[in-house]
Amino acid sequence: MRLALSLAEKARGKTLPNPMVGAVITQNGKVVGQGYHRGPGSAHAEIVAIKSAGVKTKGATIYVTLEPCCHSGRTGPCTEAIIEAGIKKIVYACKDLNPLVNGRGAQALRRSGLKVENGLMKNEAIRLNEVYFNAIKNRRPFVTLKIAQTIDGRIATLSGDSKWITGKDARVFAHKLRSENEAVLVGLGTVKADNPSLTTRHLQGNNPYRIVVSESLEFPKSCKLIANNKDHKTIIATTKRSLNEYSKNKKTNGLTFWEIKKSGKNRLNLADILQKAYAFGIHSILVEGGSLVATSFLKAKLVDKLVVITAPLFLGSGLNSIGNLKIGAIKNAIKFKNYSRFQCGQDQVFVGYPDWKH
Amino acid sequence: MRLALSLAEKARGKTLPNPMVGAVITQNGKVVGQGYHRGPGSAHAEIVAIKSAGVKTKGATIYVTLEPCCHSGRTGPCTEAIIEAGIKKIVYACKDLNPLVNGRGAQALRRSGLKVENGLMKNEAIRLNEVYFNAIKNRRPFVTLKIAQTIDGRIATLSGDSKWITGKDARVFAHKLRSENEAVLVGLGTVKADNPSLTTRHLQGNNPYRIVVSESLEFPKSCKLIANNKDHKTIIATTKRSLNEYSKNKKTNGLTFWEIKKSGKNRLNLADILQKAYAFGIHSILVEGGSLVATSFLKAKLVDKLVVITAPLFLGSGLNSIGNLKIGAIKNAIKFKNYSRFQCGQDQVFVGYPDWKH
Repeated sequence: MRLALSLAEKARGKTLPNPMVGAVITQNGKVVGQGYHRGPGSAHAEIVAIKSAGVKTKGATIYVTLEPCCHSGRTGPCTEAIIEAGIKKIVYACKDLNPLVNGRGAQALRRSGLKVENGLMKNEAIRLNEVYFNAIKNRRPFVTLKIAQTIDGRIATLSGDSKWITGKDARVFAHKLRSENEAVLVGLGTVKADNPSLTTRHLQGNNPYRIVVSESLEFPKSCKLIANNKDHKTIIATTKRSLNEYSKNKKTNGLTFWEIKKSGKNRLNLADILQKAYAFGIHSILVEGGSLVATSFLKAKLVDKLVVITAPLFLGSGLNSIGNLKIGAIKNAIKFKNYSRFQCGQDQVFVGYPDWKH
Repeated sequence: MRLALSLAEKARGKTLPNPMVGAVITQNGKVVGQGYHRGPGSAHAEIVAIKSAGVKTKGATIYVTLEPCCHSGRTGPCTEAIIEAGIKKIVYACKDLNPLVNGRGAQALRRSGLKVENGLMKNEAIRLNEVYFNAIKNRRPFVTLKIAQTIDGRIATLSGDSKWITGKDARVFAHKLRSENEAVLVGLGTVKADNPSLTTRHLQGNNPYRIVVSESLEFPKSCKLIANNKDHKTIIATTKRSLNEYSKNKKTNGLTFWEIKKSGKNRLNLADILQKAYAFGIHSILVEGGSLVATSFLKAKLVDKLVVITAPLFLGSGLNSIGNLKIGAIKNAIKFKNYSRFQCGQDQVFVGYPDWKH
């Protein structure tokens, strides 16, 4: 199963709206076939593994990271292929919550006389497809908030200097996060302060969509997100009024505009932004800042995963990563359901899943 | 040497003004004797090890964490004992910078025909006695600043709630820090806000001296540091004027008062506090806060070691661990010569040595 999970991982960022899936076939404890799903339209992991095993599938065991499908999409149902291959036992890590499957895949296999087990490395398998499961459950994109800070929680000096707090390895990691998300989201403040490209550099990977959230559309003069929009991946989330004003005066240069409802006097409705993104086909968003946007997402409890990269630096007063969340008592601080920490070059990465129900 | 270091460690907090020292004697690679220095007036580690080895010292090798002494203090010189025991080879981890030794111990042994090696696990040995070496080099106490915070660098909510940010294990660790330091230092703000005891609880260990730094002496009504001063370990660092005022009106209740010079209009001179502490016989101080005191120590570059305990909690706006250090550019942020991180229950501990020369 560990091998199957690592196979699945190979297609991270490429399978959506499908899940990442890996499969391994064994005979007498020896691996005889393996495969993973490369993305929409490609064969499912089980099919790839069965093909790679050839005649050795007779009486074999298949390990799959996700319950096999029993419906015909662009490819035939995997349950049938597994039965036809003469496989005698299946172990899958977690249920496919897709309403078209959701236990029926396992049922079909059991009915055909296969031995069916599940739950092996379940947590890892759920984590692997957190974006996919979130889409099914919440029908909105999975939101990751990334913060790069000093030990004392500053994201810049008082004068705004932030280059570079984190080290080279952490910056590569941050670009990996970009490549694994379908969209990156920032506020206009960050566009003004940093004039970022928001592309994946430092490593090979997809360029995500670039969502700028702002009621005002006062972009800096040579704004990279607008000027370098040959791939038409820049999206402006703003109000109808701002949009009308903007399109009167300026060429839209391949930009996509989303009309967002307002929430209170000075805020765009973040839930509405997520709805627009989901309808657009975006299943995962990396929120990169600034502080205002990050604070709004946390306040709205719309952060699914928090990634904090902490450099071994101390600043004292400076710009804070997060503003006022109106938390008056320590017992009401944001807690995490699951979290882990790892070293990334000189820096430390914290990855946690906020427990909004607490 | 690893064994010798762990032996030395057993007397942490008990040897000052002496260093912690451990010694191991081997014959043909087998340990035949071991010992450590328990504190002032007790035998040195080498002597304890030689006694425990008995007749097996002839032709043996001794591993010592620190260069042996060659002067007579309350105990005779270790170099002579080593020579008399018939030991043929010595490996020590680091030089004793005490001007009475400082290479002369090694020289004496070499002259007597012993094979002398040094430098094995040198960094660990220097770290072990960082307080002792600091006293020799800087003639002031070694200052450790401890901060307990959330991931986003807050030490309390905006309303001042701080109980408890860190978990049980981290609080035990914090008390261990207290027991290992000869004094704990806080500002009056912390006394007013928390009315702390500043004693070692949660584990067995020494109670440190308790230094309160404040020009004003407006203690809370039932101040534990004053009321529970049976051990006469509470020290008030204040101005001559405040002291005169205070002693006119109140019983001093076994309190020790230090008259401290002022530094600027509203600040006590921290270097002067450290001088008074050193003259008093204190070699290590744990600064526990609050933010004002911690900021002042960092500003004065008088922090030798920083210990930051970070809980897996997120607060948003709150009280910051550190105030304005007037650092305008990231490149001028406080860096660390050496740092390490480790898990402590649910929390993460960062231990770093600020690089003030950078």
